[in-house]
Amino acid sequence: MTGTDRASRPGGRTARVRADVLAAVEAELAEHGYDGLTIDAVAARSGVHRTTVYRRWKTVAGLLVDLLQAGADDAWEPADTGSLEGDLIAVNREVHAALTARPSVTQAVIAASFRTPEAAEALTQFWVDRYERTAVVVRRAVERGEIPAGTDAHQLLLTATGPLYHQLVLLRRPMSRSIADQHARVAAKSLCGA
Amino acid sequence: MTGTDRASRPGGRTARVRADVLAAVEAELAEHGYDGLTIDAVAARSGVHRTTVYRRWKTVAGLLVDLLQAGADDAWEPADTGSLEGDLIAVNREVHAALTARPSVTQAVIAASFRTPEAAEALTQFWVDRYERTAVVVRRAVERGEIPAGTDAHQLLLTATGPLYHQLVLLRRPMSRSIADQHARVAAKSLCGA
Repeated sequence: MTGTDRASRPGGRTARVRADVLAAVEAELAEHGYDGLTIDAVAARSGVHRTTVYRRWKTVAGLLVDLLQAGADDAWEPADTGSLEGDLIAVNREVHAALTARPSVTQAVIAASFRTPEAAEALTQFWVDRYERTAVVVRRAVERGEIPAGTDAHQLLLTATGPLYHQLVLLRRPMSRSIADQHARVAAKSLCGA
Repeated sequence: MTGTDRASRPGGRTARVRADVLAAVEAELAEHGYDGLTIDAVAARSGVHRTTVYRRWKTVAGLLVDLLQAGADDAWEPADTGSLEGDLIAVNREVHAALTARPSVTQAVIAASFRTPEAAEALTQFWVDRYERTAVVVRRAVERGEIPAGTDAHQLLLTATGPLYHQLVLLRRPMSRSIADQHARVAAKSLCGA
């Protein structure tokens, strides 16, 4: 969900316009939040003509939805460290970094999801896709014999990541990276005695 | 955070007015969300004169903050079932019920916390108080010798409750009560091997 170098962008002018506009949406959202996000500011920041932005994205919600859809189109996959614990720690460090960045695009998108149903739906779809991709860390652990076949991947990932989102987004309290690591370890060991 | 019978309310007329107004805030919030919450609707529903509501609470945000402060003033404490697992299951069932109620006052208050900084601050304070009260389940488990002294109560409670909030509030996906129970069990066992 971060900008890429212009020269490396595939797809010609239309793809470049989209990339420029979405990079501007990210920057405006992170700096000013959803309330400060306007099509005019996005147009000015991206250098794309405002009538083009209005024609293609129509509304601020349309820009947000496209930002999340672009995020779902990327090639992200979780790190493969060789152990369930290592993989979950890597996942939690990504979540922790995204939620504690100043400014945090992720926090801004979450806040926006409580303002407009289209953004809420797009964020749910983005996360469904991300959690499905992350489930590979559980399948690899099953293949290595670390955890039983039939382990519920989503439930395990919620044990690892849920405490970070709850603390840093809803409770609005701090959490150190080492505590985020510990929540990953708890999840990795959550099948002991099972 | 739910209304009580008028006859049983202590404190005379001022306390009755507050209870009537806050019960109306809860009902309006649950039915219409933060966007539909107005001082006029709260006044009409509570039967309290609108000038009284404006004078005492001033804004919609003021009503929300007072609702959360009233919630913090109650006598709530977690169930004492005799085991850490039982206590955490009871906590998770309360959280699950609050987040899956239709309509859910808790979900409406969380959404409102992304609309106004005063509500965000009041919600954080409400939860800090609730999590501090809930920490007694961890202290009792230490006293029974179930878990080591020095166990971080908040971290343990985040392991139990964080997955429910993340799934039901941020991911906006369903979770059955039996999965909520399982997250409580994972937290209760999270110190095995420690």
